[in-house]
Amino acid sequence: MTNAINAGMPSVEIITIGDELLIGQTIDTNSAYIATILNLNGISVKQITSVSDNEEHIIYALNDAQKRANIILMTGGLGPTKDDITKKTLCKYFNTGLRFDEEAFKNITRLFTSYGREVTPLNRMQAEVPTICETIYNEFGTAPGMWFVKDEKIIVSMPGVPYEMKAMLQNIILPKIKKQFTLPHIIHKIVLTQGIGESFLADLISKWEDSLSPLQIKLAYLPSIDIVRLRLSTKGYNADELNNNVNQKIEELKQLIPQYICGLETYGEEKETLEQIIGKLLKEKQLTIATAESCTGGYLAHLITSVAGSSEYYVGSVIAYSDMIKELELNVPTQLLQEHGAVSQPVVEQMAISIRKKFNTNIGVATSGIAGPSGGTDEKPVGTVWVAVSIGNKIISDRFLFGKRRERNIQKSAQAALNILRKELI
Amino acid sequence: MTNAINAGMPSVEIITIGDELLIGQTIDTNSAYIATILNLNGISVKQITSVSDNEEHIIYALNDAQKRANIILMTGGLGPTKDDITKKTLCKYFNTGLRFDEEAFKNITRLFTSYGREVTPLNRMQAEVPTICETIYNEFGTAPGMWFVKDEKIIVSMPGVPYEMKAMLQNIILPKIKKQFTLPHIIHKIVLTQGIGESFLADLISKWEDSLSPLQIKLAYLPSIDIVRLRLSTKGYNADELNNNVNQKIEELKQLIPQYICGLETYGEEKETLEQIIGKLLKEKQLTIATAESCTGGYLAHLITSVAGSSEYYVGSVIAYSDMIKELELNVPTQLLQEHGAVSQPVVEQMAISIRKKFNTNIGVATSGIAGPSGGTDEKPVGTVWVAVSIGNKIISDRFLFGKRRERNIQKSAQAALNILRKELI
Repeated sequence: MTNAINAGMPSVEIITIGDELLIGQTIDTNSAYIATILNLNGISVKQITSVSDNEEHIIYALNDAQKRANIILMTGGLGPTKDDITKKTLCKYFNTGLRFDEEAFKNITRLFTSYGREVTPLNRMQAEVPTICETIYNEFGTAPGMWFVKDEKIIVSMPGVPYEMKAMLQNIILPKIKKQFTLPHIIHKIVLTQGIGESFLADLISKWEDSLSPLQIKLAYLPSIDIVRLRLSTKGYNADELNNNVNQKIEELKQLIPQYICGLETYGEEKETLEQIIGKLLKEKQLTIATAESCTGGYLAHLITSVAGSSEYYVGSVIAYSDMIKELELNVPTQLLQEHGAVSQPVVEQMAISIRKKFNTNIGVATSGIAGPSGGTDEKPVGTVWVAVSIGNKIISDRFLFGKRRERNIQKSAQAALNILRKELI
Repeated sequence: MTNAINAGMPSVEIITIGDELLIGQTIDTNSAYIATILNLNGISVKQITSVSDNEEHIIYALNDAQKRANIILMTGGLGPTKDDITKKTLCKYFNTGLRFDEEAFKNITRLFTSYGREVTPLNRMQAEVPTICETIYNEFGTAPGMWFVKDEKIIVSMPGVPYEMKAMLQNIILPKIKKQFTLPHIIHKIVLTQGIGESFLADLISKWEDSLSPLQIKLAYLPSIDIVRLRLSTKGYNADELNNNVNQKIEELKQLIPQYICGLETYGEEKETLEQIIGKLLKEKQLTIATAESCTGGYLAHLITSVAGSSEYYVGSVIAYSDMIKELELNVPTQLLQEHGAVSQPVVEQMAISIRKKFNTNIGVATSGIAGPSGGTDEKPVGTVWVAVSIGNKIISDRFLFGKRRERNIQKSAQAALNILRKELI
């Protein structure tokens, strides 16, 4: 079905479809994901366009995108209900009818069977695809993707559900694109600077900045609350040369402003989380762990158990949200609670020691703090948190003062606990 | 400077500018924010377009947007560094030069003084604006916004830093737009349904759905992990009539599928979560609750304790990630575990009963399942989850079969537990 296309550098446009995007009910996260995956594979994105579930507008956007791009990736509007019109619109656009795709139907049946349900007529209709398209199977959902070729342009329609789209893009669509194009390399490297505003920084490095353009390296300044990111971007077919050029310029920058550089960031990489790092360390060292949580209310345990295989080292937790449970289950003496309060060093240390003993693990971790919004005092304002780790014959504890926002205090407390643990493990 | 424009319903397009958007380094959250604020004020958004810091492309996008919209709101590209070219591009687009804006410069000076710094020449240049624009002052940053009128179209350029843009939009730009247009009302109301897939739901309510279009009400289905949101949208000048129509249809829906409706959501407001709903019910009924978690690993407790004030009703949890803890802490008999396995009705029921007794609460909730990716068998595949609620003299338990993905299984299990609890509480 697919004609071979062998242009040089492909360029892509993304069209995301759905009224929910145009009324702000949903933030378009799909586009950033797609753009990242494409860039990592040498493909530039020219424009991202979000339009509503409107036939005329979708067709306009498709025609417009083709002026600039030779690949158009669309997401959204493939659900079984009446408000989703992308498939119908594509039939009209390509002047084609529908065919019933047996394989797509098998996939729908498989999914419904796994949920213990019968396929409805509406879902059966999801196995119908435009006659001229190549069907892209959807591992995680009922809406198949569709791959079209017209006037040497590739047009692909994917579902809007992020994890369905991601699997389709990574496993099927990207490999298909790679087969048809000789892709260049796109390099983005990011230098983190701290302690200097972007305009001061720009003054300081202006000569260095001027030396980038002869090498076809583009510089971008990305200021955020505390950090200015400098992104160096370049594109070409010789990966070694591109990398060497960028690395050399980063070395020069390090010489130029060593006092402001606080790190490098790898573009597009999923950052390894603290709980993943700790999971690896615990497995390696064959240690077990239990937690006793107050202010984090289960979030610390959740982070630890979000890692696949965590049952190898994680035994469990007592969440002692009330003082009664701290006393009864974690052997915190009433007197200690009365004298120092639940949010205190002796209490959190006792919690860590007790849970380790009670659950018979190598390590005990405990948190106790005031997440807010209420419960703060002058002496212990909202955001005050104690964290303790009991390991070997050591007990490490530390006090933190985070901010006023409950959600952030819970997150930061759990991160602080994991970070103390990480430091002890390495 | 600004000509009065008095067309009827204005329509808006949003153009967000920045290479970081096209390479996926930054997710465009500004557009969803702007779209929400506009909809709440009766203004529809036709298209959202993201383009890179490229003069030609920005000008193309501006011309294209004017075909559909009479107001164009742009963000991004106003920083002091060389990579930001929006202001220069707008000068070219409007065929105008720059003027030095004393007020904008005072604002820049004020900001630098507050940081204890001198204004750099680069920042001084930020006080230059296109001669023909009206300057929009930036309370929180150095880049002024710019308001242009051309051929009866309004074109506004705002900085891309979210909090700078938000203040500008809310305090200056929106009031200016409101003065120039007689704005209609846009109503979005959202009904939350649970326990039924979107295609089954669509079958069930298809007649009701047909009755919406004569009233100019548009229906959208928005499926998420456990909930399908039904959004009813309408637009017009008579707010009472619009509200009455939508409310009446929601009442009809409540009659039609009372068993699946689990709440309403106010558009543009923070969504009420299941844990918030349960929090309210528990407070109202003055009941206390404890949890015993296996597969959810603390996530259920985390959801419950993410609600401010949850310490009034939530006492704590035992996370029994290992069978040993289920035996020792939750009195699950060894025999029961051996005969039925940890993921079974008798075990999860015993967990719920035990935690309630142990923590002396009115309610006990328990989960036990196979989150995956490993641990599944033919009889109990990954995604098999048992949930139990012990309340009054009742024990309610239910078995679920979710999918293969660990993260989703954890989320869905916790949601399922909360939902059983919600049903028992109402």
